[in-house]
Amino acid sequence: MTRSQLIKNIQKKQSFLCVGLDTDINKIPKHLLEEEDPIFEFNKAIIDATLPYVVAYKPNLAFYEAHGAKGWVSLQKTIDYIPNDIFTIADAKRGDIGNTSTMYARAFFEQMSFDAITVAPYMGSDSVMPFLEFDEKWVILLAATSNEGSKDFQDLTFDDQKLFEHVITKSQEWGNTDNLMYVVGATRPESLKEIRKLAPDHFLLIPGVGAQGGSLVEVCNAGMNNECGLLVNSSRKIIYSSNEEDFADAAGEAAKSLQQEMAEQLQNMTATS
Amino acid sequence: MTRSQLIKNIQKKQSFLCVGLDTDINKIPKHLLEEEDPIFEFNKAIIDATLPYVVAYKPNLAFYEAHGAKGWVSLQKTIDYIPNDIFTIADAKRGDIGNTSTMYARAFFEQMSFDAITVAPYMGSDSVMPFLEFDEKWVILLAATSNEGSKDFQDLTFDDQKLFEHVITKSQEWGNTDNLMYVVGATRPESLKEIRKLAPDHFLLIPGVGAQGGSLVEVCNAGMNNECGLLVNSSRKIIYSSNEEDFADAAGEAAKSLQQEMAEQLQNMTATS
Repeated sequence: MTRSQLIKNIQKKQSFLCVGLDTDINKIPKHLLEEEDPIFEFNKAIIDATLPYVVAYKPNLAFYEAHGAKGWVSLQKTIDYIPNDIFTIADAKRGDIGNTSTMYARAFFEQMSFDAITVAPYMGSDSVMPFLEFDEKWVILLAATSNEGSKDFQDLTFDDQKLFEHVITKSQEWGNTDNLMYVVGATRPESLKEIRKLAPDHFLLIPGVGAQGGSLVEVCNAGMNNECGLLVNSSRKIIYSSNEEDFADAAGEAAKSLQQEMAEQLQNMTATS
Repeated sequence: MTRSQLIKNIQKKQSFLCVGLDTDINKIPKHLLEEEDPIFEFNKAIIDATLPYVVAYKPNLAFYEAHGAKGWVSLQKTIDYIPNDIFTIADAKRGDIGNTSTMYARAFFEQMSFDAITVAPYMGSDSVMPFLEFDEKWVILLAATSNEGSKDFQDLTFDDQKLFEHVITKSQEWGNTDNLMYVVGATRPESLKEIRKLAPDHFLLIPGVGAQGGSLVEVCNAGMNNECGLLVNSSRKIIYSSNEEDFADAAGEAAKSLQQEMAEQLQNMTATS
């Protein structure tokens, strides 16, 4: 998907919501366990219920790999089920030497038809660049993540810049605003402000709103630009709103409520720009 | 596998060779393509031929994921085929927020029975620690990698220590010599020396000997300790020694030749310790 298609979808749906499909067999409603592929059935129902309110879905690969080959079948069926005009992110956090990164890129962009993949920056240029060679496909590079341990290395300061700022600066030599986004945790609004200065026009993928405690308004204040420039992800808070038979309706309601908050923020953006 | 079992195997086989199963469908002998599962058939023949000379195998996950669910079946069959007294490494370079890392750990340590997994350090403590909670299982943390881009971030200096040195120091708060190893590229003998000072007793996994140009003797001079302390990986140089019908024999010969060089190094070690 191109940048302009993504921006158009955000405007049309008045939403920059990404729903994380972290589908855990131990957390989905019990009645689904009778189905042949409970994980896919859960995802299908969640997608049907939330589709009007979202612009992106983000399956977290770990939850599929935990089931081996069967999990990959569930993932493939899920990605095939998501309509083409929705942005899809393989939350895989891959990154390896050049020829291996190329294999991963083919797995996610060709074998499956994801629009984007999350990539870890530790191994540098040749671990990231192979993912940038595919037309209309995106790298979402880890910058300042939302978890507790994120500060162990990401906040180390070299030459007056933190490691995550070096990642933002250096990686702009490899990609551009049409094929490169950054992961910035909603739990780190200060880092988000610093990143917005270094990357004013890049889209940012923001996890950590909801279950991890980040606030949508703070995120928008710190990170929104005049084209929105944000994809805000919520996983557990939406998909596990209920674990009874009404789980899909409950997820739809949760997504709708977040979408309405987002619509307000988008209107503020238009009003002030 | 425990540390003492691994050391015993190294002594018995007079080898610290790990063979990387980076099995690329485009590079394996053409006659195997007629088999139902060419990747597994290739691995099986390579394992049969190299087994006397190796202490570890390291499938590179990208090469299996590139084939989706089918690739995971080939991987599962491969790991099931490797005898229990051989150390197995999932070269997956995973790392995510805590609950997600736990899912990855289950995928590789329980769903499949790998002894070890390579992990990327960028996300810090809670992305690494879930992998350390499994008995007789190992984290192999990326420290100084062998690829060209490795210097982009790993060599940035903070408080007189490079990032990869911070990774070594910090991670020793999380794991110990019985469950934590480090990846150090054979192409970086200087970094290897520095790391050996910071982690005198940890095992190090050394890729980059062979196709990537690192020298075995240099690696041993810089990194061997009095229990060996090294697993040296070779992938392409061994498994693609020939792409004719004799591919397995050729791989066996290549492994044997590297093992003989290793036996010499182990004898030097005993002589000088």
